[in-house]
Amino acid sequence: MPLTVPAWAAPAPGAPLAPTTVTRRDVGDHDILIEIAHTGICHTDLHRVRADWGPGIFPMVPGHEITGTVVAAGQAVQRYALGDRVGVGCLVDSCRECAPCRAGDEQYCARGHTATYNSRDRYGDPTHGGYSTHLVVDERYAVRIPDVLELDLAAPLLCAGVTVHAPLVRRGAGPGTRVAVVGLGGLGHLGVRIAHAMGAEVTVLSRSPGKRDDALRLGAKEFRTTTDPGVFEDLAGSFDIILNTVAAGLDLDAHLRLLALDGAFVGLGVPDGPSEFGFFSLMLGRRSIEGSLFGSVAEIQRTLDFCALAGIGADIETVTADRINEAFERLAKGDVRYRFVIDAKSFSS
Amino acid sequence: MPLTVPAWAAPAPGAPLAPTTVTRRDVGDHDILIEIAHTGICHTDLHRVRADWGPGIFPMVPGHEITGTVVAAGQAVQRYALGDRVGVGCLVDSCRECAPCRAGDEQYCARGHTATYNSRDRYGDPTHGGYSTHLVVDERYAVRIPDVLELDLAAPLLCAGVTVHAPLVRRGAGPGTRVAVVGLGGLGHLGVRIAHAMGAEVTVLSRSPGKRDDALRLGAKEFRTTTDPGVFEDLAGSFDIILNTVAAGLDLDAHLRLLALDGAFVGLGVPDGPSEFGFFSLMLGRRSIEGSLFGSVAEIQRTLDFCALAGIGADIETVTADRINEAFERLAKGDVRYRFVIDAKSFSS
Repeated sequence: MPLTVPAWAAPAPGAPLAPTTVTRRDVGDHDILIEIAHTGICHTDLHRVRADWGPGIFPMVPGHEITGTVVAAGQAVQRYALGDRVGVGCLVDSCRECAPCRAGDEQYCARGHTATYNSRDRYGDPTHGGYSTHLVVDERYAVRIPDVLELDLAAPLLCAGVTVHAPLVRRGAGPGTRVAVVGLGGLGHLGVRIAHAMGAEVTVLSRSPGKRDDALRLGAKEFRTTTDPGVFEDLAGSFDIILNTVAAGLDLDAHLRLLALDGAFVGLGVPDGPSEFGFFSLMLGRRSIEGSLFGSVAEIQRTLDFCALAGIGADIETVTADRINEAFERLAKGDVRYRFVIDAKSFSS
Repeated sequence: MPLTVPAWAAPAPGAPLAPTTVTRRDVGDHDILIEIAHTGICHTDLHRVRADWGPGIFPMVPGHEITGTVVAAGQAVQRYALGDRVGVGCLVDSCRECAPCRAGDEQYCARGHTATYNSRDRYGDPTHGGYSTHLVVDERYAVRIPDVLELDLAAPLLCAGVTVHAPLVRRGAGPGTRVAVVGLGGLGHLGVRIAHAMGAEVTVLSRSPGKRDDALRLGAKEFRTTTDPGVFEDLAGSFDIILNTVAAGLDLDAHLRLLALDGAFVGLGVPDGPSEFGFFSLMLGRRSIEGSLFGSVAEIQRTLDFCALAGIGADIETVTADRINEAFERLAKGDVRYRFVIDAKSFSS
């Protein structure tokens, strides 16, 4: 029987979020019902409720950094049992048949993955995210939260964490590699922690000199303010990987010249307009510009397992549902260190 | 004793080339003296004599696709003997001490490699290229021309050939990979031949419908005119590697969307102005934009050895020295199928 549960939704593009209810589908044979404990507030939530990246499906219940506990399971569920601690990230389904799906890259599903919210599921119904008390999901699209991770500190790993971890793994970050993290926010602070734990030498590049202490505390070896004169000359050819976590447009050529031979600029933040560069900046060091989109379910699990081993969680500020709109406003100004996480109990009060 | 030899040089930026003489250094202990047989005309020669990419050293003797025969050797020379068939590509020296040099990537020498022309050697003297009868070079910067390759057909492999082969090797082109070659010119026609010989499935993307027959003859499986309506939609997600050999600016986003998951757009042509793209075009397929600069000496040798095995040479039009300026004009209009090669005997007549 479908379940009607409390949630917070944006009724229309740009409108403040307000309490409502949503219907979760029947728990199917392969589904689990999750009682949500915590949901992170991702910058994408902000973009989506404002329809910054194209029209959305409204009312919209955001949230794709979800942790909780299994409270019901379909009869064919194999991986999870009642009481298990689980998480759901940015996607809840995919076609399961195309080449990327078969290769375990379902976030690049050729038919388009089903996003955790602002998407339509295989029955044509809109998906609703984690700003809610409960979620029904096929067990294949859930991950296990390792015991040592707290459900609140782990929530941001489901999107922000895997988004930085996956390209670091792909690019072989580790002892001997030099990683620059551009921007110290939700993604950036996890990028520093994770790259440092992988054994890489980490430099934070930021426009805010006030973040120096945090950067060093999180594991950076160096902190450089990019508005300082001469910093791009000083650091020329210094990095194997640049993780760009900022959405604001930046001088791409200047950043490309910071890369050593075969270095990669990995774009995780999405600037509003087009980005510009000159091909010589790439050719004169066999450099590359890469894009990366969060991660697959397997990559999320890998991120969680790595973070469990390394003792890594996010730096969070916990909020209740009635403070979501305030949190959105502060997030838009970059005023959070470093991730808002909503206590899901507050959705039902 | 230094040798004064015939050459053709541009006396000043943009001026027509004219006969002159240049002095080649003493044949040092590690040097070989090459009697040049053929020199290819690379599009870079045109850019350099026009100082398109910054000021140059004039008078300038271009030419970095050089084949010939060893006619003298220093006493410490080990690899080559008198009469050996050898080639010289885009560089003739490097620091030999930096990390890229030690790794065999001397084209990315941290102190800047010494280009075959328009550069200064370790003694501070300007280097002069292959539009000449003779060249002195340290044996480390020469390659062996396999017996089965003709010296005229092989000349373009020294720059154009390695420039397309090296990124195809790095990106794993072979059976099962789909390669698009954008532009069918000097680089492009070798890109098609080489990628096809590596076992990849090759598509040529061109703005000139008249090149279809040539494309198929060279080994392409498909030919598509990029000005046809719907071609970018038809081919969306179709390629693992795009080799862009054209310098004219193109719609980078449209081309990025032609890439499959993890596909790479390899930029070999250098547009005059900056290039523009949106990061979503990369992120929605974990795609990358890469730059690549000709190849190392080892990579040139690998290209020659591969082309010898595969029976690949360039399609050339042989010219004599007195027709260099006419060849430059035709090259600027794309009027050559597919590489001009100068008969070096004509420099001394």
